[in-house]
Amino acid sequence: MNRIGSLRDRLGRIAYGGDYNPEQWPEQVWEEDLRLMKEAGVSLVSVGIFSWATVEPEPGTYDFGWLDRVMDLLADSGVAACLATMTASPPPWLTARHPEMLPTGADGTRMWPGGRQHYCPSSPVYREHAAGLAEQVATRYAGHPALALWHVGNEYGNVAPCYCDVSADAFRRWLRERYGSVDALNDAWSTTFWSQRYASFDEVLPPRSPAPFANPAHAVDYARFSSDELLACYLVEKEVLRRVSPDVPVTTNFPPSLRPADLWTWAPHLDVVAYDAYPDPFDPAADAKIAFSYDVMRSLGDGEPWLLMEQAPSAVNWRARNAAKPAGAMRLWSWQAVAHGADAVMFFQWRQSRGGAEKFHSAMVPHGGPTGRVFEEVRELGHEFAATTALPGARAPRADVAMVLDWPNWWALEQDAHPSADVRFLDAAWALHGPLYDASVACDVVRPDADLSAYRLVVVPNLYLVAEEAARGLERYVEDGGTLVMSFFSGIVDSCDRVHLGGYPAPFRRMLGLRVEEFRPLPESGTIGLSQGTGTVWSEDVHLEGAEAVEHFTTGEPAGRPAVTRHRFGRGTAWYLATRPDPATMRRLIDRIREEAGARPVLPGLPEGVQARARVTGDGPCYILLNHRTTPVTVDLPGPMTDLLGGADAAGTVRLAPRGVAVLRPAG
Amino acid sequence: MNRIGSLRDRLGRIAYGGDYNPEQWPEQVWEEDLRLMKEAGVSLVSVGIFSWATVEPEPGTYDFGWLDRVMDLLADSGVAACLATMTASPPPWLTARHPEMLPTGADGTRMWPGGRQHYCPSSPVYREHAAGLAEQVATRYAGHPALALWHVGNEYGNVAPCYCDVSADAFRRWLRERYGSVDALNDAWSTTFWSQRYASFDEVLPPRSPAPFANPAHAVDYARFSSDELLACYLVEKEVLRRVSPDVPVTTNFPPSLRPADLWTWAPHLDVVAYDAYPDPFDPAADAKIAFSYDVMRSLGDGEPWLLMEQAPSAVNWRARNAAKPAGAMRLWSWQAVAHGADAVMFFQWRQSRGGAEKFHSAMVPHGGPTGRVFEEVRELGHEFAATTALPGARAPRADVAMVLDWPNWWALEQDAHPSADVRFLDAAWALHGPLYDASVACDVVRPDADLSAYRLVVVPNLYLVAEEAARGLERYVEDGGTLVMSFFSGIVDSCDRVHLGGYPAPFRRMLGLRVEEFRPLPESGTIGLSQGTGTVWSEDVHLEGAEAVEHFTTGEPAGRPAVTRHRFGRGTAWYLATRPDPATMRRLIDRIREEAGARPVLPGLPEGVQARARVTGDGPCYILLNHRTTPVTVDLPGPMTDLLGGADAAGTVRLAPRGVAVLRPAG
Amino acid sequence: MNRIGSLRDRLGRIAYGGDYNPEQWPEQVWEEDLRLMKEAGVSLVSVGIFSWATVEPEPGTYDFGWLDRVMDLLADSGVAACLATMTASPPPWLTARHPEMLPTGADGTRMWPGGRQHYCPSSPVYREHAAGLAEQVATRYAGHPALALWHVGNEYGNVAPCYCDVSADAFRRWLRERYGSVDALNDAWSTTFWSQRYASFDEVLPPRSPAPFANPAHAVDYARFSSDELLACYLVEKEVLRRVSPDVPVTTNFPPSLRPADLWTWAPHLDVVAYDAYPDPFDPAADAKIAFSYDVMRSLGDGEPWLLMEQAPSAVNWRARNAAKPAGAMRLWSWQAVAHGADAVMFFQWRQSRGGAEKFHSAMVPHGGPTGRVFEEVRELGHEFAATTALPGARAPRADVAMVLDWPNWWALEQDAHPSADVRFLDAAWALHGPLYDASVACDVVRPDADLSAYRLVVVPNLYLVAEEAARGLERYVEDGGTLVMSFFSGIVDSCDRVHLGGYPAPFRRMLGLRVEEFRPLPESGTIGLSQGTGTVWSEDVHLEGAEAVEHFTTGEPAGRPAVTRHRFGRGTAWYLATRPDPATMRRLIDRIREEAGARPVLPGLPEGVQARARVTGDGPCYILLNHRTTPVTVDLPGPMTDLLGGADAAGTVRLAPRGVAVLRPAG
Repeated sequence: MNRIGSLRDRLGRIAYGGDYNPEQWPEQVWEEDLRLMKEAGVSLVSVGIFSWATVEPEPGTYDFGWLDRVMDLLADSGVAACLATMTASPPPWLTARHPEMLPTGADGTRMWPGGRQHYCPSSPVYREHAAGLAEQVATRYAGHPALALWHVGNEYGNVAPCYCDVSADAFRRWLRERYGSVDALNDAWSTTFWSQRYASFDEVLPPRSPAPFANPAHAVDYARFSSDELLACYLVEKEVLRRVSPDVPVTTNFPPSLRPADLWTWAPHLDVVAYDAYPDPFDPAADAKIAFSYDVMRSLGDGEPWLLMEQAPSAVNWRARNAAKPAGAMRLWSWQAVAHGADAVMFFQWRQSRGGAEKFHSAMVPHGGPTGRVFEEVRELGHEFAATTALPGARAPRADVAMVLDWPNWWALEQDAHPSADVRFLDAAWALHGPLYDASVACDVVRPDADLSAYRLVVVPNLYLVAEEAARGLERYVEDGGTLVMSFFSGIVDSCDRVHLGGYPAPFRRMLGLRVEEFRPLPESGTIGLSQGTGTVWSEDVHLEGAEAVEHFTTGEPAGRPAVTRHRFGRGTAWYLATRPDPATMRRLIDRIREEAGARPVLPGLPEGVQARARVTGDGPCYILLNHRTTPVTVDLPGPMTDLLGGADAAGTVRLAPRGVAVLRPAG
Repeated sequence: MNRIGSLRDRLGRIAYGGDYNPEQWPEQVWEEDLRLMKEAGVSLVSVGIFSWATVEPEPGTYDFGWLDRVMDLLADSGVAACLATMTASPPPWLTARHPEMLPTGADGTRMWPGGRQHYCPSSPVYREHAAGLAEQVATRYAGHPALALWHVGNEYGNVAPCYCDVSADAFRRWLRERYGSVDALNDAWSTTFWSQRYASFDEVLPPRSPAPFANPAHAVDYARFSSDELLACYLVEKEVLRRVSPDVPVTTNFPPSLRPADLWTWAPHLDVVAYDAYPDPFDPAADAKIAFSYDVMRSLGDGEPWLLMEQAPSAVNWRARNAAKPAGAMRLWSWQAVAHGADAVMFFQWRQSRGGAEKFHSAMVPHGGPTGRVFEEVRELGHEFAATTALPGARAPRADVAMVLDWPNWWALEQDAHPSADVRFLDAAWALHGPLYDASVACDVVRPDADLSAYRLVVVPNLYLVAEEAARGLERYVEDGGTLVMSFFSGIVDSCDRVHLGGYPAPFRRMLGLRVEEFRPLPESGTIGLSQGTGTVWSEDVHLEGAEAVEHFTTGEPAGRPAVTRHRFGRGTAWYLATRPDPATMRRLIDRIREEAGARPVLPGLPEGVQARARVTGDGPCYILLNHRTTPVTVDLPGPMTDLLGGADAAGTVRLAPRGVAVLRPAG
Repeated sequence: MNRIGSLRDRLGRIAYGGDYNPEQWPEQVWEEDLRLMKEAGVSLVSVGIFSWATVEPEPGTYDFGWLDRVMDLLADSGVAACLATMTASPPPWLTARHPEMLPTGADGTRMWPGGRQHYCPSSPVYREHAAGLAEQVATRYAGHPALALWHVGNEYGNVAPCYCDVSADAFRRWLRERYGSVDALNDAWSTTFWSQRYASFDEVLPPRSPAPFANPAHAVDYARFSSDELLACYLVEKEVLRRVSPDVPVTTNFPPSLRPADLWTWAPHLDVVAYDAYPDPFDPAADAKIAFSYDVMRSLGDGEPWLLMEQAPSAVNWRARNAAKPAGAMRLWSWQAVAHGADAVMFFQWRQSRGGAEKFHSAMVPHGGPTGRVFEEVRELGHEFAATTALPGARAPRADVAMVLDWPNWWALEQDAHPSADVRFLDAAWALHGPLYDASVACDVVRPDADLSAYRLVVVPNLYLVAEEAARGLERYVEDGGTLVMSFFSGIVDSCDRVHLGGYPAPFRRMLGLRVEEFRPLPESGTIGLSQGTGTVWSEDVHLEGAEAVEHFTTGEPAGRPAVTRHRFGRGTAWYLATRPDPATMRRLIDRIREEAGARPVLPGLPEGVQARARVTGDGPCYILLNHRTTPVTVDLPGPMTDLLGGADAAGTVRLAPRGVAVLRPAG
């Protein structure tokens, strides 16, 4: 953490800024840019993410003059640069010369230029040219005083995988590496089914459409492969950067959806985790959902602070209907990122584009200029952050609760030909995370095979795919005294998507004290009665084998059977949800379970709609309070505290404005 | 019927079993399989349907060792084998060597391997390799003591037609055969429209997309051609089997949807009709809909018993949400198949797969092993069937009612550019079949040109496309004293989809005693008032020419005009429905019509929700009573009967449990 | 207007007839056709639109014999011919020989023959063969006595643009022409965004899919290009026709949707504007929507009469559910076309096809023959029109109101990545046009840079894209005393889709006296409260800079902010709508605005549902009254008038039957 430590020292505050694309503007605008950045408290900007065609207008011809001037201006103004390798969007000359590097969809149609990230990640042409450009950029700017951080690519994985013949070759190599022999592959993929047995690796193809109901092991391996191929693209550039500038930290920004790449395998290769968050302001659960993503990011870095690399000052442009953020929401959600461990709050983008596909994406400096609500909020927040010298580098305390997240499980869970298409991982994760979030109970996110001994409660949403050893780890956690809550359709298949035989959920039957005989998914938008509440999405026939029923189904085919169970196992307790309780029922359940487990809120007695999170600075804990209500609220504190924002003492209570924030430090 | 008679003699009971795919399991499981089959009363299993890649792992190299052992085990255990030719899913080595045999969609995109049935039915490569494999299988197992029946392919037609260039060539040959000259083709297809006149057969293409509003005659001929090409695939294999093993009966399983192939042309080539039924347990009309399919199957074999080759023990896996069958439904619906003439009740599949795309399809032996509700129901039913020695081979008595079904009409009716996209054949058929089913009135299904003289009532749902001669046959039926009920949009076009001129419905005007001036389809989900009830989907302007109006429209543009008419014609009566009455109205109407026609229930005075069907054994009629209610019911019988299941006498009444079944034989 | 004047003289009445496709019928039917045409008052028929394959059955072999006979029959019967160049649907032999001329979709899939208009408009093969056929047709029939008008192609643009490589080449030429240098192109398209800078024109492609969020300037230019390429197809043929037959007027029928081609650039190349109108009878606003289209058509010809080239006698066949026109609606809507300036009312088609994709499209002579409601209405209307000798050539008086319509704005407005996908141009236009229509206030349609000085009120729906000069023109109009009402999201970008900087809507801020700080589109189907009414689709933060708020938002984030504003500017008044008021609110607002502006109804005091329009004949104004109600109504007239239809005097009042029409001329 040498590299990232020196970055923190250099910035000395919560970093603040955004994507800066000066090449879209005449140079006379740049001076105003720098002046306004100072006014807005900007300390860090991402530069050059989509500049390939500008810096290499023709193959092998480089024009860095404009960027030299921009970097010098930034250095002169004390603004640090997160400099891109500029490889996210290949220039027209490259794809015109090498159309074979364009990605191909599962249906065989080509994805043409016009957007961005239009490259096959397995393409040697793309990788070679990307590495070449990274070398040029690294060599030129390695020692530049403005340079603080390398930004490789952009949101790897936010486009669909490629299914071209080049990818097919790479996939075969990857499979050979993974399985060694074609017999092992046939076994792993259960190819006796539907006559899919391969005589040789050469016969394997990507899971191209429109074959109905692809081999699910094949599909999950293709998702693993696609994640690895993207990672290889990142690593090709990272190696260049490391060689040329060993002291400069390197990162890439993880995409908002989280889903496409296995971030557990990626995170070790980043010097600091970075994330782009785009909650939908129309969504009443927007804050709860980003809280989950932020918990993922903090956990990917093992609790180290991370960077919110992009968010929107107000509206985005790529939804069908793009809500503006209501007044105060941007500031509140920015502080929320900090509360969940972020050391930077940045935006896409600094100045709103005049042309192109993202011109209606809000920016720090809107089309209307540095005036109005958005710029005002941007400016005020920049000043608040300028005073946050205590926070950078401060870790969150280890949470009482951990939630299990595994990417291959996510991909496998959402294959087709399952009992219900309504079982989606994020819905399951949000359903369990929401009640913790509501109660200000901190939650880490962990791999299924993580050491869980330090947690009071482990939450396991739909762990459909799980390796035997990982299952044993969860069982041991309970046996040794932990409390675990697991939702239905967990423990079903192994890492090759083959059913764990022996009665569902075979690897968890002992721990849960039950057996599931048959799945009974509900019809679309259907519900099912519970003894106290309502279930959604799913029901099933649970047979108790030691567990007790805490809640029963009261309607439908499984009426009278257990819906929620508890099992004392070893020194611990394992809970099981045989349906997805509706939010109110889930909240009641999770509140009870976590109270029994001793998982406590960050601060006690918080009113509904007010969240707290802590970060541990060198001088002790620092509490960030967030009022998600649109009305003011007074919060009783456990003792006298100082509000670092207001400056005023909050002896015992603090009053939060609508969407207000306080940063509290225990007095004395 | 020699071949099938000897099969019946051999089995001596309602055959019972399922798809058996032992190659998915290690050999040590096989012994348990056979033990459990005995326990479950299994008498017949389908073997090897997707085994191509296993038995021919490389081109020309065969590995039948495992199958020899399986067949010997079956023979030793007295379980008969319905042995597949294994050609339903080509192995990877074949499509890797011959990608040109992969099917191509109407939009020109290729359908890649990964699912099954990924072959162009016109592909000479596929046909040659399929015939080659069939020859190997037939030669090896022709005299095997386990072999009872050949199973060719699998659900021919449950994938979309192929539109590739090979298909185009074959289509041209087929057209040349059908039309002789390009002038005849131009005339048949009305090619003066939109400048589509062909100068030569060589210019004809499949009806590829996305041409809006394809020539409908072209599209209907392509459906005919596709059905014929699939049939040719079947026949190629059948010829091999017949040559090698002339005494062994041959069949293939018709797909659940019924639609893709003209089964009237297929059925004569099967020694026994076989069908796969997958009703959706979420659908409250599931039992009525399969009753219709079962009537089709019985009728395809001209009343001979047929085989229910596949159904699910509980849930399937390929819907978005897959309902489990409620307790008792599997048994009830299995007996329903027998009631409608089935001599076999079989499942997909014996043992639930560990891997692959269908692992969540229920099986006779679930993932959890031979325990629990599903296996229990399977076992009990097996024992019930073991006692059914009287039923196999028993025909259904000729029904009082016949429903007209014609595949080219189905395909033509559902072309685009019609008055309403809501006029779908199955909806129309179900709407008319449902009231007969509800009333336990047996119904045969017939070709439009069938001899109808033995029927008391003929029901004609949406016979849009009808040849002049067939129309004359229907007219003669009424003239000679029959009762006929026809729904709107019938008699509109000839077999080339050209309008019968002279006022709709020209070929039926005399018989119906009316003329339709203009169609007035209803808006989406719209309804229209009737003097006693409600109409859906359609209305029109009917002018009476001898018929009387039984029901009028009361709202909308046609208010006051006839909605339901009756016409005394010759010695008979022709009814006409100018709308689709809602189910209650339809039930009232059909009850009245069939009562007037003298079409009687199988048993009189059955309570609502209880169905009866008869089969005529050597010892006289046998009545199967099915209680579709979830409450018990007592049924008054026309006389003393014996319940072959319960064994108890049912002197005058029989009590049926919820979803209960009785098999009754008149006492004495 | 010489050519068209002589056409008018020749017809001497509102032309009446339809598409006549005798090649679909045996010759014996033709005699009946001509007899029935006389009976129905037919004076003009369109011949040969889809006859290419019939007249040129093989390359270079022509068969005009049948057409000679048809033309002679028409001439003998005094029916004029609008003769097609027959190039709308290439014959099978042409596409079989030149598959490269088939159009290609944005996703790279080919559009196959089977429908019509299956040609790439940039294809030299197509253009050459089309010109060749036009030459043959022109040469043969130039002097034929039946020939009155040339009909080129058919509904140019009612298929999707082509994206093939030939189109790509043509597009590059077009861009070179438009921009001169690649630097100018890069600037116009803002290609610094997402690394899209071109090194050469050779790198430019059509905006092929599925690139998410294409460069919008690229997309809008492709729409301009596609319109121009279609126009080039038209002009290639027109030049041939003009050369061979300089005195015969030439036209083409504009497609119902209006959208695909920039009709302002097309109209000058037509001797008379022609249009195909297909309102949906299920749509309660059908009459209001066609009224808008008719206003466009009249305005394209600068107020000159135009031709309704096609409409349906009753139902069409290409919607999912095709409503029949209720009794009287066809006549009413036909007179509506005349009221809005049409000199012809024609149908698709004369005799309903027996076969092909349009056989369920209604026709003047239905399948049932010349009998029944449809033919009766056709016949009666023909006789009414036969007496309309005063109307042909009569212009509409200049309207008091003008609505701004610009095609590049339309295309740009509906690009993706905008604040809301619900902002569609036609919806906006209809919302503003509807209240004028309801009030019988005539409305012209004008280009944004038109001379507006003669109008009392200018209505500007969603003028998102506007050049600086056009904006200045609108400003000057207000400054000089005009009244203007503009809806939100206007004045946003220049003609290259680059934002007008300086605060929205920059070019209109002075005129409107306000600034919009932020867009707040509403969620799907969302509404927002107004002080008197309800807003839909959109809200935004308006800051007044001189304007006054007439209506405020009362709910949501912008509660309390202006929703409708009025600004006295120079000697005029500019209104602004920051939301789309629901229809009742909009009606109230527009009534007020137009009354203040002095824009008057064509006749005062008309009852709700009764429309009036005027045409100025040589003998003074002629008023056409249309009763869109299904009940009779008595209308008070401003003075004594004669009803040219009824013949009866209407001294002060006129009584209109349900869906009734009167053609009134002030008495004396």
